[in-house]
Amino acid sequence: MSAQAPVRRSRPRGRPARDRSVCSRELGDAAITLFAAKGYDATTLKDIAEVAAVDPSLISYQFGSKLDLWKAVIVDVGDQLRAKFAEIRRATQGDDVEPAMRRTLADIVHFMLEHPRIAHFMARDTYRDNERADWVEEKLAGLLFDYLRPALDQLRAAGRLRPGTPDMLLLHFNYSLSFSIIRRERLVRAAPELADDAVFAAELTTMLVGSILRDD
Amino acid sequence: MSAQAPVRRSRPRGRPARDRSVCSRELGDAAITLFAAKGYDATTLKDIAEVAAVDPSLISYQFGSKLDLWKAVIVDVGDQLRAKFAEIRRATQGDDVEPAMRRTLADIVHFMLEHPRIAHFMARDTYRDNERADWVEEKLAGLLFDYLRPALDQLRAAGRLRPGTPDMLLLHFNYSLSFSIIRRERLVRAAPELADDAVFAAELTTMLVGSILRDD
Repeated sequence: MSAQAPVRRSRPRGRPARDRSVCSRELGDAAITLFAAKGYDATTLKDIAEVAAVDPSLISYQFGSKLDLWKAVIVDVGDQLRAKFAEIRRATQGDDVEPAMRRTLADIVHFMLEHPRIAHFMARDTYRDNERADWVEEKLAGLLFDYLRPALDQLRAAGRLRPGTPDMLLLHFNYSLSFSIIRRERLVRAAPELADDAVFAAELTTMLVGSILRDD
Repeated sequence: MSAQAPVRRSRPRGRPARDRSVCSRELGDAAITLFAAKGYDATTLKDIAEVAAVDPSLISYQFGSKLDLWKAVIVDVGDQLRAKFAEIRRATQGDDVEPAMRRTLADIVHFMLEHPRIAHFMARDTYRDNERADWVEEKLAGLLFDYLRPALDQLRAAGRLRPGTPDMLLLHFNYSLSFSIIRRERLVRAAPELADDAVFAAELTTMLVGSILRDD
């Protein structure tokens, strides 16, 4: 867990700052790793406390409940995504809308490949109508949609998008990206060349960018 | 549950055939509905027995465990899919490989739209390395891959596929189809015209067929 959002969000008054930040990084790393690997239901606060080597009561003290800790983890993952978007926006400033979109989509594919845990959160819990589905929608998937939609609307008006509404194309992009990462082993069994990281990244980028934008 | 596979598979000796088949249809329907709607973990044998209006001990007697009942449900969903594939194969016999593939993909999209519960099974439990993930892979997703791969390999050799290995394109197709169905409400919020079934089917078909096959 890179940022310390969870701690800042539920800061217990009066604890010294240094202790807090150390605990938070360990706790946050343990939480994000276990939730991503095992899912919400199969992860217990006791597991997280064990991996983080802290007392379980500390988690309850800082976060209240498993759901609150999970929400803090998602907010933190969202912060990473938002930081990436800000970086992409700076890098593509001044580019025309279509080359900027190609580069943006490619950058998102690479970022997700470097942070495979985000793919697990994107793919997990998003198909059920419960509080966690709404949270992932709002704090993760929604960020992607909000970030990309204005440029996609522009490209659609210019006839440069493949068939489908912008949101449909984005949903397609988002789930295909997440599941390609999660199910990579399966893909490698069918096409061993995908075991090479560079080949996998290139194939995935070409496929996904080409599923949103028309060929030249 | 259309076929009575689960009962035939675990036929308790000596029970009269009529009783068995009646129980099975009710049980099977209840099981497929609840597993699809709530997922495996959140569904209990007690819930299923209640919806099916049978005694919980009957389920244990016929299926052994929740996992065995769930597996029987997936086998049955796979039977429906296999029957659909046989029907498509008859309908496209004699067609050239590319028009046959376009029609096959469109038929699969329509079949899934008519059986949205299958989308839930396709999307659920497939990203974790456990017994259920393997079962869905083998009995559902695998069917789709086995059915379509030979023709896709031929089309790839002829340069008619979009970039990506055949399995990557199929994974893309499969998850995009399932999640578009599961998340349709979300898509409708962004594009209200998708509330119309015919419009949704047409948009989804064009998008998904076009993500696998090159434009003419």
